[in-house]
Amino acid sequence: MNPALLRQAIERAAENVRCGGGPFAALVVKDGAVIAAGSNRVTAANDPTAHAEIVAIREACRALGGFQLTGCDVYCSCEPCPMCLGALFWARPARIFFAATAADAAAAGFDDSFIYRQLALPEAGRAIPVIRVADPSAQRPFEAWAAQPDKVRY
Amino acid sequence: MNPALLRQAIERAAENVRCGGGPFAALVVKDGAVIAAGSNRVTAANDPTAHAEIVAIREACRALGGFQLTGCDVYCSCEPCPMCLGALFWARPARIFFAATAADAAAAGFDDSFIYRQLALPEAGRAIPVIRVADPSAQRPFEAWAAQPDKVRY
Repeated sequence: MNPALLRQAIERAAENVRCGGGPFAALVVKDGAVIAAGSNRVTAANDPTAHAEIVAIREACRALGGFQLTGCDVYCSCEPCPMCLGALFWARPARIFFAATAADAAAAGFDDSFIYRQLALPEAGRAIPVIRVADPSAQRPFEAWAAQPDKVRY
Repeated sequence: MNPALLRQAIERAAENVRCGGGPFAALVVKDGAVIAAGSNRVTAANDPTAHAEIVAIREACRALGGFQLTGCDVYCSCEPCPMCLGALFWARPARIFFAATAADAAAAGFDDSFIYRQLALPEAGRAIPVIRVADPSAQRPFEAWAAQPDKVRY
């Protein structure tokens, strides 16, 4: 863990506010070098998924030419929200470091803690209903996947 | 809930496998009309965040010119993974419908269930370490946010 890189993520997050974005930033680091940096662009890009970590993951994967962050560390100005933590688990970096907490983000007016609590609830009890609907063809995509030759697993 | 739209998402997911993608698709529906459709493009786009729901949310927001899916329904061929469910909670549609379950996805070789279990663990016990590092400047981005005039909340 390099404290200077965490500080760099924090400074980038503060700077992003002055540029009209949300107060979050993240860096992807490989072999000690920053290979990608992301700042929150939700409102600037009209994209609710454009959190700093998502932006940084996508940029890092473009730089690496792959869809995994094997051997990389991710430095986040704030604890990743459930979306970003899920994205990080799909990207599979080596380690994730963060400074501020989800509670800090909640105190600043962001939904991170709320969403963490929502995901822990049974589906029927959530603020946005998440409803399973039985369909006889539901397994067809997975059957097609199983039958597909030369597929790229991820 | 319109069963024909759920079936359309399922068929799109199966079709996506034949096009070299993962077996997942999602539709965003407003006032009964499909305003965006997404298929999994993780390996095609070298983007671990390019799940069907994320692709559909981004396309729908572009179509709507905003960063919220107010009043929309989202139809998913499969239960959203934690990343996508987090993204949906940020996008705030009215309802989310899905056909196959996270367990079905796991049986087909996808990490959805694994990631759900990982996120429920304490940070120190996760397969990818998620480590809080104290930094005296950690709150500075939130202080900048609080002080920023005319900011766009999300």
